Amino acid sequence: MARVTIHDVARAAGVSVATVSKVVNDRYGVAAGTSERVRQVIDELGYESSLVARSLRSHQTHVIGILVAEFEPFSTEILKGVSQAIAGTGYELLAYSGGGQVGTGVGWERRSLSRLSGTLIDGALLVTPTVVDVTAPVPVVAVDPHTGPSGLPTVDSDNLRGAVAATEHLLSLGHRRIGFLGGREDLESSRRREEGFRQAMAAAGVEVDPDLVQVGGYRRETAVEPAERLLSLADPPTAIFAANDLSALGVLDVAHRLGLRIPHDLSVVGFDDVPEAVAAEPALTTVRQPIQDMGAAATSMLLGLIGGAADDHTHLRLPTSLVVRGSTGPTSRQGA
Amino acid sequence: MARVTIHDVARAAGVSVATVSKVVNDRYGVAAGTSERVRQVIDELGYESSLVARSLRSHQTHVIGILVAEFEPFSTEILKGVSQAIAGTGYELLAYSGGGQVGTGVGWERRSLSRLSGTLIDGALLVTPTVVDVTAPVPVVAVDPHTGPSGLPTVDSDNLRGAVAATEHLLSLGHRRIGFLGGREDLESSRRREEGFRQAMAAAGVEVDPDLVQVGGYRRETAVEPAERLLSLADPPTAIFAANDLSALGVLDVAHRLGLRIPHDLSVVGFDDVPEAVAAEPALTTVRQPIQDMGAAATSMLLGLIGGAADDHTHLRLPTSLVVRGSTGPTSRQGA
Repeated sequence: MARVTIHDVARAAGVSVATVSKVVNDRYGVAAGTSERVRQVIDELGYESSLVARSLRSHQTHVIGILVAEFEPFSTEILKGVSQAIAGTGYELLAYSGGGQVGTGVGWERRSLSRLSGTLIDGALLVTPTVVDVTAPVPVVAVDPHTGPSGLPTVDSDNLRGAVAATEHLLSLGHRRIGFLGGREDLESSRRREEGFRQAMAAAGVEVDPDLVQVGGYRRETAVEPAERLLSLADPPTAIFAANDLSALGVLDVAHRLGLRIPHDLSVVGFDDVPEAVAAEPALTTVRQPIQDMGAAATSMLLGLIGGAADDHTHLRLPTSLVVRGSTGPTSRQGA
Repeated sequence: MARVTIHDVARAAGVSVATVSKVVNDRYGVAAGTSERVRQVIDELGYESSLVARSLRSHQTHVIGILVAEFEPFSTEILKGVSQAIAGTGYELLAYSGGGQVGTGVGWERRSLSRLSGTLIDGALLVTPTVVDVTAPVPVVAVDPHTGPSGLPTVDSDNLRGAVAATEHLLSLGHRRIGFLGGREDLESSRRREEGFRQAMAAAGVEVDPDLVQVGGYRRETAVEPAERLLSLADPPTAIFAANDLSALGVLDVAHRLGLRIPHDLSVVGFDDVPEAVAAEPALTTVRQPIQDMGAAATSMLLGLIGGAADDHTHLRLPTSLVVRGSTGPTSRQGA
């Protein structure tokens, strides 16, 4: 099928190309009935009106793209923050998700970015932990990126200090056999959280048992098996620090199934403070990232770049804080 | 600027058009170095590779579009459900938001749909309460739509029964002066919830005081002023049923500011059960819509239509249920 052109639309609607152009650009000077007819033809023919018209008009789409690996609690909190930040700016948002293709192949983000940035978006936020480097024809800001200095302006939160705080909290409750459920070894955020865990343990003079460090995969389902492995050890942990809330929820699932009382038999700490954390039973002690603020800050940065600000490879790191709820308590195990 | 073509890319990369085509279609038979060079040129020129290539290739994009008014708690829960439903199907998701333009103009969704459905998406979910009718060149399923029978296949939940259950809950706690904070009069969901409220009040023989019925606008901020109006009445309500959770949170904001104790001085019920409801202080009694399930059901419906299923204007209505938490209790007012 050949691409539908503005000439096809004009012919089918029985009007001039100029009239079609006025309609797609929302300009005045077209009778209501005519405008309606043109719009109908555009719909019927599937003419990509605004896309092409806007591109030809001004090179400005007034649309910001957001690439996310999938729509899960963390990325949707980012979306909420971005949505609030653009309210009143006249920008629209286009969020693209690869349908959970993270790690299944390289280049998904790069292809999507290339596809969108031609005519559809003025700039993009990357909220996907697998982007390493990107060459895009539009400004790009990374949120919580894969690697440290990728050359892109980035916004993240203080993963290291957050993890130290979580671990110190468990230590202060008397826990010594503390399990750590990481995200994935190739994820910067997970590495920083493990580093914080190890620093706090070392500072307290507590040795980390290698059996107690597992990979949880950052998802509720993927955390189940490693949590079972931890809890079926001959000398199981009395507390587990999961590197994100979803995997902490997976730990709670396993603990409930095994009949463990939380926090009496097992304390659990998460990371993120997505809304699902407080909805957990019991409510999850976690490290709060200001996720919506991260989205808003990245948006401001991006709008600045789109507006012509110098790309000075800014790196904005927002603070994290420990939120203590019902899933942690003093250890009940003798000599643990 | 003229549109970048595959010929421009081929020329700039010093390869044949066929080679560029192979690269953009991820086909084998291109040396790694060549492929890398072509991709770099594509990036530099802003060529819309996959978009055009896919369209010419098969008319299938394997992308589902989701149009939302803005990324707020309800629509992002839908996104989570859709995201889970397409996992493993090979589909990608493109979510488009008008940046909170609801009600500021007509036709935003229509224009976006037209813009996207030419070459970018195989079908669309509409999660925006302002769509009345849509003629699109791709299958469309509406979630929680504006009007009843719009001609589109739709998924919604039982708003009427949910509102009856919420109102009966307040009545059973002894409340008689019950305020209702609607969404907006042009929103079908809000009308159905008000209808349920009035039915339950009538069934209990309690007259509805017109002063106690206000419009809350479905947002936390927009609920503040009408909540203040309700609570500053000479004979204020002892309970408020807000037609969604965000406006119930706005009521809690006002109540806290006025020093009212919840639920001792005022009971509050919401609608939706977004994750923010349970995170409220106190946790919000609300009517649970199975929001993620609604997204998943709409996705199945849409994938069926894309796959060639007959469009029999299906209307799927999922059940709602009352979730009692800390924001409601017996009335403490004498004779209220």
